[in-house]
Amino acid sequence: MRKVDPERQLAKRRQIMEAAGDCFARRGFHATTTAEICAAAGMSPGNLFHYFDSKSAIVEAIVDEERSDTAAYFAALEEAPDSFEALLDFLDVVMAFAADKSYARLALEIAAEAMRNPAIGARTAASDAETRAAIATLLRAAMARGQADAGLDPAQAASWVAALIDGVFSRLAMDACFDPQREAPMLRLVVSRFLKPGSAE
Amino acid sequence: MRKVDPERQLAKRRQIMEAAGDCFARRGFHATTTAEICAAAGMSPGNLFHYFDSKSAIVEAIVDEERSDTAAYFAALEEAPDSFEALLDFLDVVMAFAADKSYARLALEIAAEAMRNPAIGARTAASDAETRAAIATLLRAAMARGQADAGLDPAQAASWVAALIDGVFSRLAMDACFDPQREAPMLRLVVSRFLKPGSAE
Repeated sequence: MRKVDPERQLAKRRQIMEAAGDCFARRGFHATTTAEICAAAGMSPGNLFHYFDSKSAIVEAIVDEERSDTAAYFAALEEAPDSFEALLDFLDVVMAFAADKSYARLALEIAAEAMRNPAIGARTAASDAETRAAIATLLRAAMARGQADAGLDPAQAASWVAALIDGVFSRLAMDACFDPQREAPMLRLVVSRFLKPGSAE
Repeated sequence: MRKVDPERQLAKRRQIMEAAGDCFARRGFHATTTAEICAAAGMSPGNLFHYFDSKSAIVEAIVDEERSDTAAYFAALEEAPDSFEALLDFLDVVMAFAADKSYARLALEIAAEAMRNPAIGARTAASDAETRAAIATLLRAAMARGQADAGLDPAQAASWVAALIDGVFSRLAMDACFDPQREAPMLRLVVSRFLKPGSAE
C-alpha cells in the first residue's frame, strides 16, 4: 500500500490550481479543457482526477484558498495601530492584484462562473461576506477613533467599499484604458472622501 | 411577393428581444435554448431565424437598444438647468433598474457573456464608453458651476462613477441582502462626497 504524504498531496493540489488558474485566465473557464490543464500541470488525466474530479472543483479550491489568504490578511491587521490606514493599505493591495492581468482575468472568470454554478457561487458569496465583515471591523475601529464618519452604518459602508472593489474589476473588463496603477490613488481618494468624518452630503 | 412592413418587422424583433431577455434572466444565456425563446415569443424557429441568426445576435440587439436608450436619456439632459442634480437623478434611475430583478439578472448575464463573446464585448465596451463620456460632460458643467471638485479629471472621475454603478450590479450577484431601494441614497451619498468641491483627502 502506498503511503500518503500530506505535504506532497497539498503541493500537487496547488500545482494543479496554479496551472488551471493560468489556463482559465488565458482561455476562459469554459474554453479550457481538462487536457490543457493536464498539459500545463505536467500530469496525466488519471493523476489530475485523483486530486480534483472536475474543473469546477478546481475553481472551488481556488476560491477557498483566496478566502483563507484574505482571512489571514485581515487577522494580521487586528493589532494594527491605525485601522483607517490599514483599510487604505488594503485598497492598495487590491489595486496591485488588479494590475496583475492574469489575476484580474481569473477573478472575472470566477465571478462570471459564480453566477451559473451554485457550488462556486456559494463559496464566492461566503468569501465576500467575510471580507465585508473584516472591512466593517476596521471601519468600526476607525469610527471609534474619529477617523471615519460615525454617522455611517459600518456594515453598509463596508458594502460600498466592496462595491468599489468589484467596480475596479468590472472596469478592467469593460475599459481597456483603465490602468490600475494609475487609478490606485483614486480608489483611496473615493473611499477617503466617502468615509471622512463630518462630511455633509 | 410579400411586402415588408418595417414597423411590423421592428415590433417582431422587439417581441423576440423581450422574450429572449426574460429567458436569459431566468435561466442564464447558455442554458436558454432557441426552442425556449421561440415558445416564449410565440413563434416558430424558422420565423425566429428570419429575425436573428443566433442567441448572440439577440443579445447584441439588446445591448444596442440599451445603448440608444441611454444616449437618448443623456441627450435629453443637455439643456438640464442643474447638471449635478441631473447626474444624481441618473444614479437614482440606475438604482431603479437595479431593483428590477429581471433587468439586473439580464445585465449580469450580458456582462458575463461580454467577456467571452467578442461581438457582445465590443458592443458593451462602446456603450460603456458613451455612458462615461456623457457622465464626464455632466461633470464638466458641474465643475464649471462650482458644484463639483474642479481638481478632478472629468473623464477619470466619470470612470469611478461607472465603477460604482458596475459595483452595484456585482453586489446584487454576490450579496442576497443588498437591497437597491435601501441603497439608492447611499449611491448618491458616495458620489456626492467624492465630487464635493474643496474636499481634501
